[in-house]
Amino acid sequence: MLLLTTDVNEDVTRTLGLVSDRVASAASVRHDEITPLLQGIVRAGGKRLRPLLLLLAARGYNFESTADNLISAGAALELLHVASLVHDDTVDRATSRRGVPTLNTELDTGAVILIGDYLFAQSAKLAAETGSPRVISIFATILSDICDGQLSEMLASNRLDQSRDEYLDRVGGKTASLFAGAAEMGAFIGGAPESDVQELRQFGQDVGIAFQIIDDVLDITSSSTDLGKPTGNDLREGTITLPVIYYLQRSPNGSDRISAVAGVTDGTASAEEVEQVIDDIRSSSAIEESMVDARSYVESACKHAEVVTNPEAREQLDAFAALAIDRAS
Amino acid sequence: MLLLTTDVNEDVTRTLGLVSDRVASAASVRHDEITPLLQGIVRAGGKRLRPLLLLLAARGYNFESTADNLISAGAALELLHVASLVHDDTVDRATSRRGVPTLNTELDTGAVILIGDYLFAQSAKLAAETGSPRVISIFATILSDICDGQLSEMLASNRLDQSRDEYLDRVGGKTASLFAGAAEMGAFIGGAPESDVQELRQFGQDVGIAFQIIDDVLDITSSSTDLGKPTGNDLREGTITLPVIYYLQRSPNGSDRISAVAGVTDGTASAEEVEQVIDDIRSSSAIEESMVDARSYVESACKHAEVVTNPEAREQLDAFAALAIDRAS
Repeated sequence: MLLLTTDVNEDVTRTLGLVSDRVASAASVRHDEITPLLQGIVRAGGKRLRPLLLLLAARGYNFESTADNLISAGAALELLHVASLVHDDTVDRATSRRGVPTLNTELDTGAVILIGDYLFAQSAKLAAETGSPRVISIFATILSDICDGQLSEMLASNRLDQSRDEYLDRVGGKTASLFAGAAEMGAFIGGAPESDVQELRQFGQDVGIAFQIIDDVLDITSSSTDLGKPTGNDLREGTITLPVIYYLQRSPNGSDRISAVAGVTDGTASAEEVEQVIDDIRSSSAIEESMVDARSYVESACKHAEVVTNPEAREQLDAFAALAIDRAS
Repeated sequence: MLLLTTDVNEDVTRTLGLVSDRVASAASVRHDEITPLLQGIVRAGGKRLRPLLLLLAARGYNFESTADNLISAGAALELLHVASLVHDDTVDRATSRRGVPTLNTELDTGAVILIGDYLFAQSAKLAAETGSPRVISIFATILSDICDGQLSEMLASNRLDQSRDEYLDRVGGKTASLFAGAAEMGAFIGGAPESDVQELRQFGQDVGIAFQIIDDVLDITSSSTDLGKPTGNDLREGTITLPVIYYLQRSPNGSDRISAVAGVTDGTASAEEVEQVIDDIRSSSAIEESMVDARSYVESACKHAEVVTNPEAREQLDAFAALAIDRAS
C-alpha cells in the first residue's frame, strides 16, 4: 500500500498484520460448512482502511504501550465493516462485490443474515475485549449511525428531488461514521487529550465523506471491469448519489434529462437509454462539482489533523486523507 | 403477571416499567415511516421475561442503588431479544408471531434486515451505557451464542438422526444464552459475589433450556389458535425439536413413522399426513419424556438459586423457574 513506505511505519504495518490475524481468527465458527465462507468474506475485505486509520490516529500518541487494545479495536472495526457489507449486499440483492460473488449467490437470505449477525457479534466481542466503556460506546454509536444512514438511503431511493445536504447527512452515517469512530477510538486508546480525540474524530468524518463521494463518482466514471459491477450500478438500483444530484439540479424542471434519470431508477429505461444517461452525467459538470466537494473535505480533514504534533504521524494522516482522492485520478 | 404479586416486588414491578419505557424510547428513529413499526415490534414483545430475570437476580443484593444500570441492561437485553426475533422471522420467512403479522408481511427483506440491525445497535448502546466492561462482555457473548445456536439450527434442519445432546447444545445458544446472560448481568450489577454470579448464570441457563423445551412441546400439543401459527410449525419448517427426537428414537429403523416425519420436513406430505404425524407425536410418550427433562432443568435451576439468602428474592426466582413449566399445564 502506498501509505506504508517509510521506516517510521514499520510499527503500523506490523500491527496491521496482527489486526488481520485477529480478524481471521474471529471469523471462524465450529461449523465446518461456514468457516470457509467467513474466511473468504474477511479476506475479500482487503485494504483494512478502517483499522489503518485507527492505528494512524494513535501513532502520534502512545502507540507501543497500547498496541493490544489497538489490535482488538482494529479487528472490531474491520469486522463491523464486513458485517455491514454482508447485510448491505443482501439488502441490495447484490450478486458481486469487487468482482467477487457475494454470499447471496451461494446461500439463501436467511443464512446470509445469520452470518452477518455472527460477524456483528464477533466484532462486539472484540470491542468488549478492550475493557474500555468509551471504546464500546464509540462502537455502538458507529453501528447505530450506519443503520440510520442505510435506513435513510433505503427510504430515499428513487426520489429525484434530493438535496446535497440530505446526501451528506446519509453518507455521514452510512460511511463516515466508521472512519470517524476509527480515528476517535485510535486517538482515545493512544491516550490523546480529549480535544485531540475530537479533532481526529472530525478528521475521520471528513475523510469518510470524501471516500464516499469518490466512490460515487467512480460508480459513474469507471468501467464495469474496474468496478466489478455495472457502471452506474447505484443509479440502476435507485440510489441517488452526489453526481446525480448535481446533474439533476443543473437540469431545468420538466426537462427530458429528469425523466430519463427516472427511467433508470424505476427500471423502465432500455439498456441503451441507461447507457445514454450515464454517459450524459459523466460528461456533465456534475463530476467536477463532486470532485470539488471531495477535495474540500480532504482539505478540511487535514486542518483537523494539525493537532497532531508528531510530524511523521501527521504526514501519514495527510497521506491517508489524500488516498480518498488519489483513487479517482 | 403471576410472579409479581407480593409487596416486596413493588420495586421490581416499578423498575420493569422503567425498562419498558427505556425500550420504547430506544426503539424510535428520526424516520417517521419506521418509528411506528419499531414501536409495534417492541410492544408485541410483551412479557419482558429477560429483564424480569435480570431484576430478580439483582433483587437479593444491592437492588436500589444499582437500579439505573439495571434499567439500561434490562432494556439492552429486551432489545437484543426483539432484534433476534426480527431476524429470525426473516430467516424462517415467518408471516406471524403470536398471531400478530411479522414485519415480513409489510416490508421487503432488506428493510427488515436493517430494522433488526438498528435494534441490535440500540441494544449495544444501552449495554454501553452501563459503562461496565463485564456487562458489555456478557452482552457480546449472548449475541455470539444466539447466532451460533441459530446457525446450528439452520445447518441441522431436516436432519432426522439428531441426538438430544445436539438439541440441548443448540438450545443452550439460541435461547438459554439470553436467560443465562440476564441472570449473570443482574447478579453482577447488583454486586453479588462472583461465586453467586456464576450460580445465578447457571440458574438462567437451566431455566432458559426449560422454557425452550416447553415451547417445543407446546408447538406440538397446542391448538393453532393458541399458538398463533399452525400446530407443528417447527416440524413443518424442518426444525427437529426434543419431542420429535424422542419420537424418532422410539421408532424402529426403517419404520413408516420415520418416513412420515421426513415427508413433513421436506414438504412432500399432504395436509392430512402432516396432521396424522403431529397427532401421533402428541399421543406418544415423547411429550411426557420432554416434560420430564423440562422439570429436571427447573429443579436444577432452583438448586443453583439456593445461593440467594434473601428469602423473598429466592422465592421469586423459584417462581420464575416454575413459570417455564406452568405454561404447559
